[in-house]
Amino acid sequence: MAVAKSSRRKREEEVTKFVDRPGRTRKRALPWQRWIDAELGFRNYWYPAALSRQLTEGGCRPVTLLGEELLLVRNGGRLYAIEDRCAHRGVRFSKRPLFYTPHTITCWYHTFTYNLDDGKLRCVLNEPGCPLAGKLGVRTYPIEERKGLVFVFVGDIDPPPLKCDTPPGFLDDDLAIHCAEPFEVKANWRLACENGFDPGHHFIHNWSPMVVGTDYPITMGYVSKPERRREAMEFSLDEPGPKGFERKSESWEMIFDSTIPARGAEPAVKVTVPGAQGKTPEQLQAMVSAAVATSVGLWLPCGLRVAGFPTPDITHYEWYVPKDENTHLYFQCGARRAESEEARERWISQEGHAAWEIPAVQGFTTEDRFAREGLQTFYGHEDGWHREHLYGPDVEIVLWRKFASEQARGVQPRNGARSGAP
Amino acid sequence: MAVAKSSRRKREEEVTKFVDRPGRTRKRALPWQRWIDAELGFRNYWYPAALSRQLTEGGCRPVTLLGEELLLVRNGGRLYAIEDRCAHRGVRFSKRPLFYTPHTITCWYHTFTYNLDDGKLRCVLNEPGCPLAGKLGVRTYPIEERKGLVFVFVGDIDPPPLKCDTPPGFLDDDLAIHCAEPFEVKANWRLACENGFDPGHHFIHNWSPMVVGTDYPITMGYVSKPERRREAMEFSLDEPGPKGFERKSESWEMIFDSTIPARGAEPAVKVTVPGAQGKTPEQLQAMVSAAVATSVGLWLPCGLRVAGFPTPDITHYEWYVPKDENTHLYFQCGARRAESEEARERWISQEGHAAWEIPAVQGFTTEDRFAREGLQTFYGHEDGWHREHLYGPDVEIVLWRKFASEQARGVQPRNGARSGAP
Amino acid sequence: MAVAKSSRRKREEEVTKFVDRPGRTRKRALPWQRWIDAELGFRNYWYPAALSRQLTEGGCRPVTLLGEELLLVRNGGRLYAIEDRCAHRGVRFSKRPLFYTPHTITCWYHTFTYNLDDGKLRCVLNEPGCPLAGKLGVRTYPIEERKGLVFVFVGDIDPPPLKCDTPPGFLDDDLAIHCAEPFEVKANWRLACENGFDPGHHFIHNWSPMVVGTDYPITMGYVSKPERRREAMEFSLDEPGPKGFERKSESWEMIFDSTIPARGAEPAVKVTVPGAQGKTPEQLQAMVSAAVATSVGLWLPCGLRVAGFPTPDITHYEWYVPKDENTHLYFQCGARRAESEEARERWISQEGHAAWEIPAVQGFTTEDRFAREGLQTFYGHEDGWHREHLYGPDVEIVLWRKFASEQARGVQPRNGARSGAP
Repeated sequence: MAVAKSSRRKREEEVTKFVDRPGRTRKRALPWQRWIDAELGFRNYWYPAALSRQLTEGGCRPVTLLGEELLLVRNGGRLYAIEDRCAHRGVRFSKRPLFYTPHTITCWYHTFTYNLDDGKLRCVLNEPGCPLAGKLGVRTYPIEERKGLVFVFVGDIDPPPLKCDTPPGFLDDDLAIHCAEPFEVKANWRLACENGFDPGHHFIHNWSPMVVGTDYPITMGYVSKPERRREAMEFSLDEPGPKGFERKSESWEMIFDSTIPARGAEPAVKVTVPGAQGKTPEQLQAMVSAAVATSVGLWLPCGLRVAGFPTPDITHYEWYVPKDENTHLYFQCGARRAESEEARERWISQEGHAAWEIPAVQGFTTEDRFAREGLQTFYGHEDGWHREHLYGPDVEIVLWRKFASEQARGVQPRNGARSGAP
Repeated sequence: MAVAKSSRRKREEEVTKFVDRPGRTRKRALPWQRWIDAELGFRNYWYPAALSRQLTEGGCRPVTLLGEELLLVRNGGRLYAIEDRCAHRGVRFSKRPLFYTPHTITCWYHTFTYNLDDGKLRCVLNEPGCPLAGKLGVRTYPIEERKGLVFVFVGDIDPPPLKCDTPPGFLDDDLAIHCAEPFEVKANWRLACENGFDPGHHFIHNWSPMVVGTDYPITMGYVSKPERRREAMEFSLDEPGPKGFERKSESWEMIFDSTIPARGAEPAVKVTVPGAQGKTPEQLQAMVSAAVATSVGLWLPCGLRVAGFPTPDITHYEWYVPKDENTHLYFQCGARRAESEEARERWISQEGHAAWEIPAVQGFTTEDRFAREGLQTFYGHEDGWHREHLYGPDVEIVLWRKFASEQARGVQPRNGARSGAP
Repeated sequence: MAVAKSSRRKREEEVTKFVDRPGRTRKRALPWQRWIDAELGFRNYWYPAALSRQLTEGGCRPVTLLGEELLLVRNGGRLYAIEDRCAHRGVRFSKRPLFYTPHTITCWYHTFTYNLDDGKLRCVLNEPGCPLAGKLGVRTYPIEERKGLVFVFVGDIDPPPLKCDTPPGFLDDDLAIHCAEPFEVKANWRLACENGFDPGHHFIHNWSPMVVGTDYPITMGYVSKPERRREAMEFSLDEPGPKGFERKSESWEMIFDSTIPARGAEPAVKVTVPGAQGKTPEQLQAMVSAAVATSVGLWLPCGLRVAGFPTPDITHYEWYVPKDENTHLYFQCGARRAESEEARERWISQEGHAAWEIPAVQGFTTEDRFAREGLQTFYGHEDGWHREHLYGPDVEIVLWRKFASEQARGVQPRNGARSGAP
């Protein structure tokens, strides 16, 4: 059930006082403190941890999620996620992984042998009858494989259905998913969330290869008019569905040019984005119309959906998975409805590559990566969370911060995160 | 007006008690505490920030001075220095600099557009009418270009004339200046000041390429005799001229050989510097006479002048500009009087390269760089300021420390320096 | 005199309560606190610092021992070890070492000249009559050369005979020593001690090149049976001989195979080490018999002796010399009795290389290095000393920890270690 309009109005009023203020924000006053605290991510959520194709039968893969080191294993047709640290003396299993049975992992150092499913110590090969067997153990993580992605639950509660923690529609049966190779970005995961949803960030895409020299309508920013913003944003709080919100492009104001005002003897100067130069208003309108079906939504814990991108029939999904304080793993998927198994296969193998990955991944989100890394110094080292000066369009960002602070199931603790336990 | 002799005597008496003491110096006792505090430099001074030729029309250049990141811009024939950090969300303009008018800079992320001269927010291209315009701003810095160098004032007061902050004579109309390419040295800037002025450091230049195999008179150290030191050092406190002091070589004792005393069965051993080996006293005296006009002076904030180096008609200038705690930018210039515009051009283009840069920069100060970097571990990481054991010739260094501590207009704070504000 | 049996029983009872406990160890309860504190090594011991062949006449070599930087010098046929830091302004002598006499070192910066034997300032070449002479000084270290190794004493007491600080027999006149090139390992030195003596670590050597495809008997671990452990371990506390203890292989239980127990529908699985696969019990027994004379001993401060390795006539010695918190220098030597000078020479030049260095250094201890580096993250950054969960065979490790904590002459302090003084 979406949030009622009155609630939305109140919600917006609570945050608008934090934008358009030239002075420094006091540290205590922020109603999104949990967002500031969540440097290592939100706890008690499902996260994509690897692609299915990165884990072949009998293989394993070490990953770091929210500061926790774990080992993904595919063995005997099953998937496991286990703390990558022997309970005995802390060495990483992944340095020399040994699987003497399909259901166990043996430490390369002192033969401690653990169940892959519950992490309990089954036995120690060189100490038969070791009294620690069945008592000692390592942490294990719920794991699920869907749509070519391997999801892991990082938390302490009974995991809710995966559907609650993925953007709407992603798990739909008729949706074919093409996955790009994930990679690390040197920026905190929250900066990626904010950049992805930011209505004012559109300007950076004037330098995206996909846009340069084409008719793809890139603007100064696709800012919602304040009086229409409330209608444009839709909060999703449905139980048990995913929690997030979405902005539809019908209400956007597409700004292709703007004027730097005169000052003294300096004349006013009109600035037009490169792609709009030399175009008539009618041509610009046609460009916009072609892209009008787009909507952008951000869902807990860290998933973005852009419907109608790069073309109306395609939906772009991405996740910013926290690795540590300074790094996130960037997953990107392109989705299209597939009516048959053959259509699905074609999308996963060839068509998704040509129609989505080349324009969107190789040609567009490169600039988002650039922008996130550009934010990292200020927010990671210069107390940006309290020194920033937000402007009007940032209302949508602080709405998200407040929403996430209220709704998040938990905040990953900074101390002890590397211990594999909260 | 130079300091009176009685004042100089008192000044020297106050510091001599800190040399020739084998015990550890107590932390509280030092009369040059501001020097110890000035890890990031002295605030409220002009500093060379770049060479003129490094900033072409329409270009820009990020530099870090005293821990502050700023962007130098040359546009429309004017120079600007502006904080390299957008007031909105802290990204660096220099990552993708945009100049839509000759008087403004636009942030590549959200189109915040600032005046280059006063740093005020002129407008936001994608939010016409943004109420932050005219209120929000970034820091700007006074900037001046002279003699092929671009100077920037880092501070909070009305900047005094540039003449006050450069060694005497540097701005003289008839002085032609040849600038070497500046480079970073991995040592704190104060260690460079002390090395440059240090009368005992001459010994390192026995390994300078310019000296090896030539008759250039390099010594064990050109130590002033204590009884003559007071006369040799001249303090300059003239208002509004530069503040510093200078040592003239007439009073130096040039030490070409020395003896390691005997001990038990070990005989005394005479040590002669390489360049003096096999030379008669008359030959040595001739070498010294050829170099006798040299004088060395150090001026606030961090400029050194060596008159008569490497030849009597040339003056060597250098600056040790603080970048951060561990690094300074090393500027070197060679100067000669030029009677005509043609003579000036010849010096700047060809003659200065051959007569000054090759011997002095490529062949001599290489060893100074080596020495400064050699000091960095002790002073940067091992509390050298309180563990050092100074000897007689260091009186001239501690005179400088005390002088600088008393005269400096301000100390750059360690916290907040990166904020672009004091 | 070895420790009496009753004492050994008591000693073991005191530590066994710390193994086989699934819960976390309380921080205060550990009877080996000095071991935990000795991150930078045990003070007041002799350590190998270099090989003889690494120091040629007239040469020098900077080394870091227990966090202290020092310079080894061989001059006039004598060896010296001197703090590598001028007392004046802290530069390292080793950046440009100057030896104007065979008994002194002169700093390259300001000509401070020190006696190599006692570190006292003999003179300053450019300040004749400097009053600091004879008063100021740098630290010097006792140094001794034996068997191709250069040993340095790091401490404040009168050094005991070198014999007290080397494993038994190493200095025997008839023992020929072949030294491998030492190298740095990225692990704290204590982890190396524990790995070397650890009865459960044998499993890692199933991947040692020397073992793969040969009949060398490698096991799951050569665990002493608890009821026989007391007899197997012999403590050496003889005055003035070396302090340590040794385990003889006659009492070992060689475990070639083991079983992972069944669980639910999962059957039990027998695991056999690679080298034992396809062999009859008789063949395995023959393999063991061939290796039965082995004994392993660990001596303060950090020396290991393996008698009968890799063949019965050879003794393997190694040291884990602390460099800093995260690094030790790994020395390895192969020893054999030599009846004549010719036999000694052959062993040092050719035979030791073929019979010991190729199998033991290139083919076996590579896996020990791998294991030590695998421990470093947990013990260096994750509080492993309090989070580890020890099992039965670790009794021998904690016996050592407690023994070393009781017997060590001193613990290197963490603060001030870099100062060259305790």
